[in-house]
Amino acid sequence: MSAATPQPQMLVIFGASGDLARRKLFPALYSLHVQQLLPRPFLMLGIGRTQYDDEMFRAEVMKDLDLFVPKAAGEHPQERLCFANSFYYQQLSTNDGADYARLAARMEQLQRDNELPDNVVYYLSTPPALSQQIPVFLAQHNLHREHNGFKRLVIEKPFGSDGVSARALHELLHKHFEERQLYRIDHYLGKETVQNLIVLRFANTLFDTVWDYRHIEYVEITAAESIGVEKRAGYFDSSGIIRDMIQNHLLQVLALAAMDPPQQFDSACVHAETLKVLRGLRPLSATELQNNVIFGQYTASHVRGESVPGYRDEPDVPADSHTETYAAIKLYLNHSRWYNVPFYLRAGKRLPTRVTEIVIHFKRCPHPVLGTLPGALPNQLIIRIQPDEGVLMTFGLKEPGGGFHVKNVSMDFHYKDLAKTAIADAYERLLLDCMSGDATLFASGDAVEACWDFIDPILAWKNSSARLFGYPAGTWGPNEADAMMARDGRTWRYPCKNLAADGDYCEL
Amino acid sequence: MSAATPQPQMLVIFGASGDLARRKLFPALYSLHVQQLLPRPFLMLGIGRTQYDDEMFRAEVMKDLDLFVPKAAGEHPQERLCFANSFYYQQLSTNDGADYARLAARMEQLQRDNELPDNVVYYLSTPPALSQQIPVFLAQHNLHREHNGFKRLVIEKPFGSDGVSARALHELLHKHFEERQLYRIDHYLGKETVQNLIVLRFANTLFDTVWDYRHIEYVEITAAESIGVEKRAGYFDSSGIIRDMIQNHLLQVLALAAMDPPQQFDSACVHAETLKVLRGLRPLSATELQNNVIFGQYTASHVRGESVPGYRDEPDVPADSHTETYAAIKLYLNHSRWYNVPFYLRAGKRLPTRVTEIVIHFKRCPHPVLGTLPGALPNQLIIRIQPDEGVLMTFGLKEPGGGFHVKNVSMDFHYKDLAKTAIADAYERLLLDCMSGDATLFASGDAVEACWDFIDPILAWKNSSARLFGYPAGTWGPNEADAMMARDGRTWRYPCKNLAADGDYCEL
Repeated sequence: MSAATPQPQMLVIFGASGDLARRKLFPALYSLHVQQLLPRPFLMLGIGRTQYDDEMFRAEVMKDLDLFVPKAAGEHPQERLCFANSFYYQQLSTNDGADYARLAARMEQLQRDNELPDNVVYYLSTPPALSQQIPVFLAQHNLHREHNGFKRLVIEKPFGSDGVSARALHELLHKHFEERQLYRIDHYLGKETVQNLIVLRFANTLFDTVWDYRHIEYVEITAAESIGVEKRAGYFDSSGIIRDMIQNHLLQVLALAAMDPPQQFDSACVHAETLKVLRGLRPLSATELQNNVIFGQYTASHVRGESVPGYRDEPDVPADSHTETYAAIKLYLNHSRWYNVPFYLRAGKRLPTRVTEIVIHFKRCPHPVLGTLPGALPNQLIIRIQPDEGVLMTFGLKEPGGGFHVKNVSMDFHYKDLAKTAIADAYERLLLDCMSGDATLFASGDAVEACWDFIDPILAWKNSSARLFGYPAGTWGPNEADAMMARDGRTWRYPCKNLAADGDYCEL
Repeated sequence: MSAATPQPQMLVIFGASGDLARRKLFPALYSLHVQQLLPRPFLMLGIGRTQYDDEMFRAEVMKDLDLFVPKAAGEHPQERLCFANSFYYQQLSTNDGADYARLAARMEQLQRDNELPDNVVYYLSTPPALSQQIPVFLAQHNLHREHNGFKRLVIEKPFGSDGVSARALHELLHKHFEERQLYRIDHYLGKETVQNLIVLRFANTLFDTVWDYRHIEYVEITAAESIGVEKRAGYFDSSGIIRDMIQNHLLQVLALAAMDPPQQFDSACVHAETLKVLRGLRPLSATELQNNVIFGQYTASHVRGESVPGYRDEPDVPADSHTETYAAIKLYLNHSRWYNVPFYLRAGKRLPTRVTEIVIHFKRCPHPVLGTLPGALPNQLIIRIQPDEGVLMTFGLKEPGGGFHVKNVSMDFHYKDLAKTAIADAYERLLLDCMSGDATLFASGDAVEACWDFIDPILAWKNSSARLFGYPAGTWGPNEADAMMARDGRTWRYPCKNLAADGDYCEL
């Protein structure tokens, strides 16, 4: 059940001077170091285009730690230096074969010097195109061979931009690496509260018993961002929120929320159950595409008195962009546990707040009197993934005083009350897991392809005749998303109010 | 669903200078007055042996209010006086027929003067013997007749001291009053949190679904008092904790916790369902009497550094008293909802704290991995009836960090967070209900008799050959009660630790 202590190994990070490495990977590694969870010996070899020597790189890493990791009380002044000393650097042009030969020699040298076995995790913290290039070069220089130790390859999303490209990517990777060597990282799966879904569901008779179509009326999964496209317009405009959030994160979360109990919590069992859910995503019919998928794009407005530009006014976004910054999808699962239970997914940028949550809406209570009282709302279980991770349960109690009036109240559990220290960043857990060879919380190739199989027709519909609706920045998305819910006699859960003072809801 | 506004009426309280009237009934009436829930016109006629006139009685009532009702912010200085002016007094010797004739005349006069219809609630706040005497005298003077309005009779426990005497009492009452005119008050049923049981159970799919033998492993019901016998030794020594707490309060609470959903929340439906539970109390076999009933009596000890006398050392308690101050009973119900589910009841004096609570222990979670982890405890739902009324749910979450460790945590709801004002005293609710003619929260005669039918053999066993175990004041009762649980592989829930520093656990 617990992550095994990783064997002595080298971690090779491509893109070591990039944002992700500096903001997430180095701090995560440092945290693992402080907790003495890193293998011994352990060595990190950073790869990048920049011309550094080891010392310069270490100085950069120290600077990054100072920026992104607050000093802990009682932290030894030499701790960070001591940690940085396990870091090395190798300059490399990703399309230069000679550089890979030099890399191979450097790795061998480092292994010899540090009496390290030939266990290597390659972490590709690089743009998508390089995820296809680097593995091929690694293979050409035999850096993928597991003669004397394991070789693992961690790759970052996107895993293709549709089913065809994802299959092509996997085919290419499988030429040189076995599926078991591949770790497709989805940082959502590294979040404590996402993993907690598994425990919450299966370690509690109270929830385990009611987790099916007999007791659940519908499920909402929301990923709201309050920020706009920021500096990622170039990437985002060619991607859109469906590829950026729904195809990967939200469908993976859905899979964990909906899966049957895996017999063990190992990679094989969990992947089998999540795959069953994802392959069970019922393809949307033409009518469903028309009625149950809403595309939105934020328009200019004023939020808390400040002027916020519309998506088309953002730098690097074409003035006629049809990229969706909001999407809502109503879907069903071909899965006997979820017979006729709708799942409502939505994700968007420039919404009123940042929140990711799952809301389980239970069926109305069947009592002939209590079930029909205005105060007797159906129970809800809200699993907040971020921020303020926790669990909220709403239920009805007797309103104090005469008669039997029902008042809806809530019980609240904040995950931070449980954690002895700050909740670990997702990358910390995922780095440790892949170093330990546990792929449970990584996406399997099959799962990624199943997600695309469901998403592809939605994207095709978007590119052909789907309508795109404006929503003022700071609101909860297009009116049409509310109308979709209203047709089912429901409303979205709004963790907070609309913030926009003005702005356009017109069709774009 | 809401209590109907009571019709204009007179409330006649026998024992109007007694403790209950002064501490509970007058404050409850005053609270109803402030909330404008009293009928208009309304008139209270106090009856007692003391020689008061109306003015003297009102002055006493004002004093009582000052003692027992804190002044509310913004309370009008004349409010209490204005309230007390609806109070009248009549001196009466309960066995003097002429006094009842004078009472009849006084009531008629008051009704005429105040244009009050002949609606009367008689509240017998008197010693048990008088509950049998007064109704007969009332009937002799035709004060029970419903020619021009209702007549209701509120009686306080004890309702007999065994099945035979209870049936005799009911037979006597039924000679003059119909069952629908009788309001047997059990103040436990007036508590918000006891009524809340009904809403909690039936207005919530989450709980409604799991409220049966399929999902519940066992149920604990505890009524612990930290005080000893105080000044009630005379009564208590002839009664014991089983008659004082279990036969009435705890079995009534059990009935509400275990009943099937009543179709309506009226007296007929609720009484039918609770009666079904109480008639389903499975009589204890000889073996069960021997093993599943524990009698205890507190012995001297030191609690928080203070010396506490044993029960036998209390004033007015015989030095060889065999009266139980603690009892624990394991029982089953002949009720298809509760097939094979044990209910553990316990009540005691001089326990470490004052608490009344129901604990629903759900079955272990069935997951082959999670269900067997040490941290994965079965879910508990704890319904605290007093003090700090509320609901507590324990459940398992993922312990932050590597692997999938389970940590047991709790969600807590405090009833006081829901109440806009202080939670009303039980008597307030019950007085209003009987004035409104709603007997739902009163004990029916059938129910009382069913409780005695279950309790009688236990008392007989106690009086014949049962053992009586000492427990030091400030502990959770005799070791044998723990041993009874331990034989089932369970432990009692201890809301707090033992407090006794010393004392005897020996058999008495």
